[in-house]
Amino acid sequence: MSAPARRYVIGVDYGTLSGRALVVDAADGTELGTAVGEYRHGVIDRVLPGTGEALPPDWALQHPQDYLDVLRTAVPAAIADAGVDPAHIVGIATDFTASTVLPALTDGTPLCLTERWADRPHAWPKLWKHHAAQPQAERINALAHERGETWIARYGGKISAEWEFAKGLQLLDEDPEVYAAAERFIEAADWIVWQLCGRENRNACVAGYKGIHQDGEWPSQDFLAALDPGFTDFVTGKIAHPLSPLGGRAGGLTERAAAWTGLTPGIAVAVGNLDAHVTAAAAKALGHGRMVAIMGTSTCHVVNGGHLAEVPGMCGVVDGGIVEGSYGYEAGQSGVGDIFAWFVDNQLPASYATAAEEAGLDPHEHLTALAERQKVGEHGLVALDWHNGNRSVLVDHELSGVIAGLTLATRPEDVYRALLEATAFGTRTIVEAFTGAGIEIGELIAAGGLLKNRFLMQMYADVTGLPLSVIGSAQGPALGAAIHAAVAAGVHADVHAASTAMGSVHHRAYLPDPARTAAYDALYAEYRLLHDHFGRTGETLHRLRRIRNEARTA
Amino acid sequence: MSAPARRYVIGVDYGTLSGRALVVDAADGTELGTAVGEYRHGVIDRVLPGTGEALPPDWALQHPQDYLDVLRTAVPAAIADAGVDPAHIVGIATDFTASTVLPALTDGTPLCLTERWADRPHAWPKLWKHHAAQPQAERINALAHERGETWIARYGGKISAEWEFAKGLQLLDEDPEVYAAAERFIEAADWIVWQLCGRENRNACVAGYKGIHQDGEWPSQDFLAALDPGFTDFVTGKIAHPLSPLGGRAGGLTERAAAWTGLTPGIAVAVGNLDAHVTAAAAKALGHGRMVAIMGTSTCHVVNGGHLAEVPGMCGVVDGGIVEGSYGYEAGQSGVGDIFAWFVDNQLPASYATAAEEAGLDPHEHLTALAERQKVGEHGLVALDWHNGNRSVLVDHELSGVIAGLTLATRPEDVYRALLEATAFGTRTIVEAFTGAGIEIGELIAAGGLLKNRFLMQMYADVTGLPLSVIGSAQGPALGAAIHAAVAAGVHADVHAASTAMGSVHHRAYLPDPARTAAYDALYAEYRLLHDHFGRTGETLHRLRRIRNEARTA
Repeated sequence: MSAPARRYVIGVDYGTLSGRALVVDAADGTELGTAVGEYRHGVIDRVLPGTGEALPPDWALQHPQDYLDVLRTAVPAAIADAGVDPAHIVGIATDFTASTVLPALTDGTPLCLTERWADRPHAWPKLWKHHAAQPQAERINALAHERGETWIARYGGKISAEWEFAKGLQLLDEDPEVYAAAERFIEAADWIVWQLCGRENRNACVAGYKGIHQDGEWPSQDFLAALDPGFTDFVTGKIAHPLSPLGGRAGGLTERAAAWTGLTPGIAVAVGNLDAHVTAAAAKALGHGRMVAIMGTSTCHVVNGGHLAEVPGMCGVVDGGIVEGSYGYEAGQSGVGDIFAWFVDNQLPASYATAAEEAGLDPHEHLTALAERQKVGEHGLVALDWHNGNRSVLVDHELSGVIAGLTLATRPEDVYRALLEATAFGTRTIVEAFTGAGIEIGELIAAGGLLKNRFLMQMYADVTGLPLSVIGSAQGPALGAAIHAAVAAGVHADVHAASTAMGSVHHRAYLPDPARTAAYDALYAEYRLLHDHFGRTGETLHRLRRIRNEARTA
Repeated sequence: MSAPARRYVIGVDYGTLSGRALVVDAADGTELGTAVGEYRHGVIDRVLPGTGEALPPDWALQHPQDYLDVLRTAVPAAIADAGVDPAHIVGIATDFTASTVLPALTDGTPLCLTERWADRPHAWPKLWKHHAAQPQAERINALAHERGETWIARYGGKISAEWEFAKGLQLLDEDPEVYAAAERFIEAADWIVWQLCGRENRNACVAGYKGIHQDGEWPSQDFLAALDPGFTDFVTGKIAHPLSPLGGRAGGLTERAAAWTGLTPGIAVAVGNLDAHVTAAAAKALGHGRMVAIMGTSTCHVVNGGHLAEVPGMCGVVDGGIVEGSYGYEAGQSGVGDIFAWFVDNQLPASYATAAEEAGLDPHEHLTALAERQKVGEHGLVALDWHNGNRSVLVDHELSGVIAGLTLATRPEDVYRALLEATAFGTRTIVEAFTGAGIEIGELIAAGGLLKNRFLMQMYADVTGLPLSVIGSAQGPALGAAIHAAVAAGVHADVHAASTAMGSVHHRAYLPDPARTAAYDALYAEYRLLHDHFGRTGETLHRLRRIRNEARTA
């Protein structure tokens, strides 16, 4: 018998500012080559390309050509970096930010790329962090509770302004002509798959988490009509389509896409997926109760459970939302690394910047080294990590950060440490919401850029009292996508098997220290009191936001 | 008739780190010359002079020789600077920090300057900010309330750990031998007068505010014995002495003191006084309802009233405590300029430091210029100004600072402005405590180093809704002392007349802007809610302090 030919797969992770392609060995997940393609237009939040029209506040658009350019530049570059024969690449999969959603024609052409509609802001893809659909989200939530729609509990009681239905309703409200012209309204996660395999395909994950698809159904036409008669056809006319399970084969790579990428026509194109959710497969964390925290500028938590539970304040629960056969749960913290970066940008004294430089450390490393010397509680501070609002468990983007306990002796490293701790307390709050709802969490698995901060990792273990594992790959989402490509290509029987073979995790890399866990309990109790005071009973932060907004527009 | 000879007086202001002498024209208060003498030993808070013994936490001592050196250096230097004939100087007066208090022999010799006791920490003057007598203050307060002592209400319900009886009881508790050897226990404000005129003299102001002298009486021997049998004689044996009214003549300058200072023996030495309280005379603010705010690292508020009222949380009310014939009220904020300095030392980014330097501004000026561009409320923040505890109206040194409303868009100037505002809200809280108790406040008069910040001054007018006047002298306390010297020397009939002739104020320099006052009302309402939540109903800040202290000592 001759040795079996090597088989490779490629994962493409579409982020907010760039796309990353990763070539891996389909047998064991070995990472062979990678390349990044920056989006030429980045986040479009000031003026519309072409016309230069100024965009309103809270808008955030993207350019679909940037997505295609990643296929034409980063994919060939990653193959070259890997030094493999493209003929041995048997599948490609993508993951995307969400809800990043666009209006298109039935042939998949984005409205913004047609001459007729290019000058209309609403014709462009709305990025996940487009926050201008808040009024529409509030109308949807109010009506759902008023009518007792059962699906609203699957989203912790609130759907987000970032999601598909809010963005769709905003489109109808503000530009009914573009709404009417939108023959399809589709997540970029699915649109990119359409570009690869030449036919529309929609995945169960994004439909569940970012759309409102539960138990095989979309919101009823009655409900949509009650929102706005013009919205009655939103599902039937623009988004309804059979949903494909994750790891499925959406189709074969088209000749056109093969020409862009340098890949072989006809190879497997996997069903679309989301960045956080594919990471669970990459971290070998598909089992029940193993919560993956993808920690970067913000943190996304995903965990599988064996049964359906309504977890207060979660982002959502979707049957098969992470992997077929389990209920996939999602929660999140809207500011984590962003808060630490804000501190360094806005509160780091010159003397600290200089000391860091002299020590050859970046400011975060320097502050961490100083903070690490302290005993738990020594700084006398507690902070709320809501500088970018609160996603879970309060689901309130109008909240803001708080810090208490400041004295004339409070130093920068004290505040920095309190902010690190606040994000750990935020994660513990989420873990407790799950365990309180009957979804046991036995392990925390960290992925994302922040796992390089070992002190932070140990703190998360100490604060939650959970063993903390870390993903073995620096390219979690791209590896997760590649795992799905391998399944779509038939290399592995299913995503579980592929995850086991190709995923990578350092189990129990950090174990909670019982003494520190006990000490953190006291600080966490203070965090929860402030959390409930400012997030549930008191209206201080909402009033401050209103005062701010009124002052700014006065 | 020949023109009357010029008559000059000299005021000596004893601060925390130095003493300042000021020569003024006794007729109209014209400032002719000044000089500063830094204390060679400064604040003694680490090791005892001579022995090198380490001092416990929260201790703060001073060296009496430093006080005498001011007489020997700064006074002659000020006379030289003024270019006047010392023979034309007809009186000298002093003001001092308080309670800065020392044990002495009946001849006035400080115990710390005797060979027998020099190596005992308790033999040394305890500076006002010696904070190690907290347990004693608590015992005194608890017993006073338990026994229903009427005097405790004159101190807003609490005497401070900084004051004379707490420090006296600490002396007894911790070094009974030194306590027994202390034939006198005397405020430095009175001790320095003793050194000038050769006989013990005690002033009504310090006895009222920093001792516990009310309605002609000290706390009863019963009360003292109940604190500790050994404390029974504290009043009768160590502090009792006839009290002199402010502006009175304590005696004539001794030959010895004349030799130190270059002044004429026999000239009037005024009764001792306190730094904040003499400033009212310097600012022509002796009338009822004119509140003087001496704004520096902290703020002291003094105001005269026509009747006795119990103002919750004030520092004290003393009959004749500021000027004979009125009830003098005192309140305070324990951190003001110190908080702004803390911000610049701990939260000013390098880019801001550079921008300030390039603009030729100090960091405070730069931040103020940026903050001034904003509309009221635009930063979305509210802070509690308790980084150094809260003196009035909560009388709680265990509180700490809070800031709420932080976002990823919050800039340094936003936080800086919120801190400025927090101190203005603190002053408004005090003003409202007075008006709520029936003491009308019709005008705010600013003195001290912060009045050079015009934006801050306007903010105080806007926040309080009161016209704000500013003292005309940069040397308010020394000028106030000089006014008292002029009265003691008989140049003016009384302190009112001397203040009118010699004081200096720019009336209504800042008038509240009704639109900004209305806008600040909304932010102030949030401040008061946080104030009551963190300062009255909630125990968060106390628990954080306890957690901190336990972590530090663990």
